[in-house]
Amino acid sequence: MLTGKDGVSGNENNERTMKTIGYAAQSAGDKLEPYHFERRELRPNDVAIEILYCGVCHSDLHQVRNDWGIGLFPMVPGHEIVGKVIAVGDEVTLYKEGDKVAVGCMVDSCQECDQCHGGEEQYCREGMTPTYAGNDRITEELTQGGYSKHVVVREEFVLSIPDNLDLSRVAPLLCAGITTYSPLRTWHVGPGSRVAVIGLGGLGHMAVKLAVGMGAEVTVIGRTDSKREDAMELGADAYLISSDETAMQVAEAGFDLIIDTVPVKHDLTPYLSLLDIDGSLVIVGQIGPLDETNTMPMIFGRRRVAGSLIGGIAETQELLNFCGRKNILPECEIIKMDEINEAFDRMERSDVRYRFVIDMSSLEG
Amino acid sequence: MLTGKDGVSGNENNERTMKTIGYAAQSAGDKLEPYHFERRELRPNDVAIEILYCGVCHSDLHQVRNDWGIGLFPMVPGHEIVGKVIAVGDEVTLYKEGDKVAVGCMVDSCQECDQCHGGEEQYCREGMTPTYAGNDRITEELTQGGYSKHVVVREEFVLSIPDNLDLSRVAPLLCAGITTYSPLRTWHVGPGSRVAVIGLGGLGHMAVKLAVGMGAEVTVIGRTDSKREDAMELGADAYLISSDETAMQVAEAGFDLIIDTVPVKHDLTPYLSLLDIDGSLVIVGQIGPLDETNTMPMIFGRRRVAGSLIGGIAETQELLNFCGRKNILPECEIIKMDEINEAFDRMERSDVRYRFVIDMSSLEG
Repeated sequence: MLTGKDGVSGNENNERTMKTIGYAAQSAGDKLEPYHFERRELRPNDVAIEILYCGVCHSDLHQVRNDWGIGLFPMVPGHEIVGKVIAVGDEVTLYKEGDKVAVGCMVDSCQECDQCHGGEEQYCREGMTPTYAGNDRITEELTQGGYSKHVVVREEFVLSIPDNLDLSRVAPLLCAGITTYSPLRTWHVGPGSRVAVIGLGGLGHMAVKLAVGMGAEVTVIGRTDSKREDAMELGADAYLISSDETAMQVAEAGFDLIIDTVPVKHDLTPYLSLLDIDGSLVIVGQIGPLDETNTMPMIFGRRRVAGSLIGGIAETQELLNFCGRKNILPECEIIKMDEINEAFDRMERSDVRYRFVIDMSSLEG
Repeated sequence: MLTGKDGVSGNENNERTMKTIGYAAQSAGDKLEPYHFERRELRPNDVAIEILYCGVCHSDLHQVRNDWGIGLFPMVPGHEIVGKVIAVGDEVTLYKEGDKVAVGCMVDSCQECDQCHGGEEQYCREGMTPTYAGNDRITEELTQGGYSKHVVVREEFVLSIPDNLDLSRVAPLLCAGITTYSPLRTWHVGPGSRVAVIGLGGLGHMAVKLAVGMGAEVTVIGRTDSKREDAMELGADAYLISSDETAMQVAEAGFDLIIDTVPVKHDLTPYLSLLDIDGSLVIVGQIGPLDETNTMPMIFGRRRVAGSLIGGIAETQELLNFCGRKNILPECEIIKMDEINEAFDRMERSDVRYRFVIDMSSLEG
């Protein structure tokens, strides 16, 4: 069934596709339920992967509820995929059966534009193909994500996992990890950099670990003191309470980079003064409106606000290698596939430290 | 009266200070009226300047009305100063009597911090001393601006004017010019750069001329078609109407840098999509709140928003030299000193193309 010998694409010939099972929302806002579907026949440059673990990202919840209006259903979410190669197309050179591999938020892009050539496939001029809730570039069939037993992905979008990493904890690197790693790299964080992280959830806790791993001085900013201990355990050097006006004044102009992981509408203004001259605040959490921002701290310090979207494929591989070298892994709570709806509820209440990972062996084939 | 031979500072000894006249607001919101006051005795590193021209900046109006709550009165506004040297302190090496010189928005800074050492006195860690509505760093006496016959400034904050430039039109370079030149330089504008300028007032028209002078492709963005002809006359390559949704869509991702000179609360979101990946929108107009910004175009393109404040002294000299080489000058309407209140009214109605400049010979001594 995983022949792919002649590279015929599409799934018109059902005999030659791969039957699999996942958990899907049949329409916007539905609970996730078991869903039998098929993965495409292997194209010459495709890799077939048995999924072992899949991380649960807050954006999965947004997508299932169609919060951004870009959902496509039925939807099998999941874009933090870890597994092993079970077959490869004829022309695949990078991977072989048995390799431990990962797939992140993208499964394809045009591969021809300046952004793709520059290793920034996430900003592909034609739009990258998302791992789920997208359309295959050749057949236009719906892409389906990692809350499933198998996935078929072109080799250029498959990543290699360093041997020393605990497979059960790698998955969140593929979204939470790269989403925070990329701005840390883009804004040149290294030894001595003064980095602040706002929010200590899935993204925030990765930002802390990665920035610490790069040798930065890391401060976590929280609204209350409640996360101080956790922040310090994750390796932070300091903890700043944003509601403490005196502490905020003392911290003014003290950071080169702020990674803002807050996933809801909020006011950037109080954080902007914390940036040093020419410093940047990078938004990776909230996709949508912000409260009114006052330009004063931007103008009187040439401070900058930016957004950042995951990272490119080469950069994601760099991240995995970096985590291998430094043995950096997310904090995970392993769940079974049939616990996913409860996990979504808990995630909405921020009741997770810091990322759910589905053990896909819990899903009956 | 301009002895300064022994470098004694302060004005306790009235005989040795310089009597002068200017136009001042006695308190917030007052009309400007003739005002007799004294300039300090020359310190060893001071330059005494007879003011020939002074530009009228929109911030002068804000300051006179105390819109920003940082006004100090009585207030002689004016920080776009052009004149000639009439005396120098004992230790002055850069200037001599008769030199054509200029003074901008700053007259002093600590000269010791990283920002001052880096030529960014406008971001001095101790705060730069503004040309007016500030306090002298030694005597704490109020600084007074260029709507006056004379000014005394330490030589490090005095600029040299290239011989070929028409003195009557140089003044606006000292604020409107450097405010737009600095971000063009900071964001590396050069031949082939795609630059958009939002708003075509004092700042905007300078941004157009300077970006054109640097070899950029320049587009002016206006709300209506009314300023198209002016934009093209200033050297712009294209004109984009922000209310034309089709044109805005066509222009998407088309600019490396946007200089936003809009001086009031507004929504950045529609402009952000006009930036290319990694492009920056730099705010130089509105000092205060913005409308709610949507982060989507920032995240899906790593786009950036920044502020920028005038420029450093070395950069301002670089600007003057650049304008000398390229013969770039602002469009000015020359007024008499006693027309200033009417000019303020007209400026508030945007009835100026593009900058008022006071001919100080119109002020009786």
